[in-house]
Amino acid sequence: MKLDLLVENTANVFTGDATLPGAVVGVRDGRVAYVGPPGPVAPERFDARGGLVTPGLVDPHTHLVFAGDRSGEFAERARGRSYLDIARAGGGIAATVRATRAASLDALVAAARPRLDRLLAHGVTTAEVKSGYGLDLATEIRILEAVRVLDASQPIDLVSTFLGAHTVPPERKAERERYVDEVVHEMIPAARGLATFCDVFVEQSAFTLAEGERVLRAGLDAGLRPKVHADQLSAGGGAELAAALGATSADHLEHVSEAGIRALAAAGTTAVLLPGAALFLGQADRAPARRLAEAGVPIALATDCNPGTCMTENLPLMLTLGMSWLGLGPEEALAAVTVHAARAVGREDVAGRLAIGRPADVAVFDVPSPTHLAYHFGVHHTRAVFKAGRLAWSASSPT
Amino acid sequence: MKLDLLVENTANVFTGDATLPGAVVGVRDGRVAYVGPPGPVAPERFDARGGLVTPGLVDPHTHLVFAGDRSGEFAERARGRSYLDIARAGGGIAATVRATRAASLDALVAAARPRLDRLLAHGVTTAEVKSGYGLDLATEIRILEAVRVLDASQPIDLVSTFLGAHTVPPERKAERERYVDEVVHEMIPAARGLATFCDVFVEQSAFTLAEGERVLRAGLDAGLRPKVHADQLSAGGGAELAAALGATSADHLEHVSEAGIRALAAAGTTAVLLPGAALFLGQADRAPARRLAEAGVPIALATDCNPGTCMTENLPLMLTLGMSWLGLGPEEALAAVTVHAARAVGREDVAGRLAIGRPADVAVFDVPSPTHLAYHFGVHHTRAVFKAGRLAWSASSPT
Repeated sequence: MKLDLLVENTANVFTGDATLPGAVVGVRDGRVAYVGPPGPVAPERFDARGGLVTPGLVDPHTHLVFAGDRSGEFAERARGRSYLDIARAGGGIAATVRATRAASLDALVAAARPRLDRLLAHGVTTAEVKSGYGLDLATEIRILEAVRVLDASQPIDLVSTFLGAHTVPPERKAERERYVDEVVHEMIPAARGLATFCDVFVEQSAFTLAEGERVLRAGLDAGLRPKVHADQLSAGGGAELAAALGATSADHLEHVSEAGIRALAAAGTTAVLLPGAALFLGQADRAPARRLAEAGVPIALATDCNPGTCMTENLPLMLTLGMSWLGLGPEEALAAVTVHAARAVGREDVAGRLAIGRPADVAVFDVPSPTHLAYHFGVHHTRAVFKAGRLAWSASSPT
Repeated sequence: MKLDLLVENTANVFTGDATLPGAVVGVRDGRVAYVGPPGPVAPERFDARGGLVTPGLVDPHTHLVFAGDRSGEFAERARGRSYLDIARAGGGIAATVRATRAASLDALVAAARPRLDRLLAHGVTTAEVKSGYGLDLATEIRILEAVRVLDASQPIDLVSTFLGAHTVPPERKAERERYVDEVVHEMIPAARGLATFCDVFVEQSAFTLAEGERVLRAGLDAGLRPKVHADQLSAGGGAELAAALGATSADHLEHVSEAGIRALAAAGTTAVLLPGAALFLGQADRAPARRLAEAGVPIALATDCNPGTCMTENLPLMLTLGMSWLGLGPEEALAAVTVHAARAVGREDVAGRLAIGRPADVAVFDVPSPTHLAYHFGVHHTRAVFKAGRLAWSASSPT
């Protein structure tokens, strides 16, 4: 077997389907060419030093293109000010929308780039990015253009989601139906070709089920696959809507109903769980991961990286929360940021698995096993990240 | 003014008492010689690149000298197995005690060293380390000797605490009184000169109030200052005992009573809060930080770094939990890992403050403000750490 690169001296290789003790990973022409016991040789060798090798991680839910930050709001909330009170004073998502509308394409790209650098440093090689901080035609499209520019100019493969229906923008509260019309008739046609998915936030404070369905059907007509922010604050039927429309993923699900769980399982929709927001907001809400898993719903985990409810790019930290808060096992948690995360962003054929012929997206961690990656939390274990067989980040790189 | 080193180009300098926008820090002969507006010059200059400069952080509660790990137990607990069930099968603290007893001094030192490297990389320049995984004379003393070896061979100043009364060792359950006798008559005299503090775990599953008092009084007689693991699982009077004995700190306090809070305030005992364990164990218990603060109890935060209930060296992550879970403000949280943490380990005269004449222990973070250090969580922001004016860690160092 002719190889270009061999990642060797591992404690374990997690392929996405199984954990193989002491296996090695061979790469040829940027693709995985071998996964198995030591034996094959290659001119270039990467010493994993007894570490864990995994598929490049997939972060299936981020909002990482935005301007400004909301650190002040974080401090106010810690001191007991309510989100509602902050929102009434012009804070909350409206603050990010104002800053993002005021930012140029270059400014949005420049603001997002270090976030992608940090995701990469945590082992991520594929990430979803949503619009939704523009809430007008020009800015929503500018965010999607920023994603396109970023996709072409750094190693992480980006999957773009149009989220014009993130919330009703502050200046349109009195004419929400006209705002939904604009999403359907102006923004979605303009997002065609720029986005892969169309997402909608179905919640009492955002959009009704009927509005959500209207937006997602318009997206489908334009070739955008559906995703739903569902049942985050209450059981609002979002999971059922996602299932009915054959959505690729239903995200959040802290309050999903039993009927919603059954519907997701039947539809083959992936659940994307976001425990980082509960950490950041100090909330006790937990998605019913075990009931979802037992019903047969594939479970993914994501950072939810965003300035208001979860300011982090540390995807491995979500493994810790996935285990200790949500009851996932170590391989189940790691599958949630590889195989199932790839499925949640429609990249199941190219990402999330170390399988022969796929692009060699590979992460190397300085821990021996999937369990240790979650167990030893909050510290940076990444030693190297390969994208399509090329070293994209290593521990000696500046973070 | 003659300086050796100037840390300049900051967004903010948090001195321990105040946040000074744009200040610089001057060092001479390893000590802080200037904190104030730019102006002074020095032959060596460190560019903080618009970051935050703080006193070197102080981690006032760790158990980081141990052998083995308990990752398997973490995975079992995620899957629903109870701690009690794990303990009955020989897991839990007994597993760490077995591994630690079997480890040589060199092995304990070698196991702990990378943990201290990671603490340093997170900005820590002073840390407390407890014994308590030996639970026999020879091993308890070996752990304290390991702390002494480590203190002399890496940059972090270590403060040593004897915790022979961590739990009744498994083989002594039938003769707990004799075990307490051994702690009092054999271990404490042997710990004299090796430890600064004597700690005891007062809890239904560990030691009674009377046993705790007996151990701490014996410690006092040997010159060891008291600390108490208090009220972690139930309001057991641990805080009141700590206050009655003039303990330097009372740690945990998730279930402290109102009387306990008043007693701590009157005694001037520092509360050391450990929110990482609740994250790691998936528990909802929160120490009443606001009520403690309002009563006038100084509040410190620590990692609690240990293999069973909180496997992390990321002290800044505790700022995030201190704000979002415990309701601390940003400067209050940062004071909890500097000024008040130094007080909790009896180093208030030398650590935790950027004040003229003190050793120049200085951390530089790639965030502009105390709030941002907590807000942008789970990612590594440290750019440089100085210990007594010498660069001890920088972002280009391997982590």
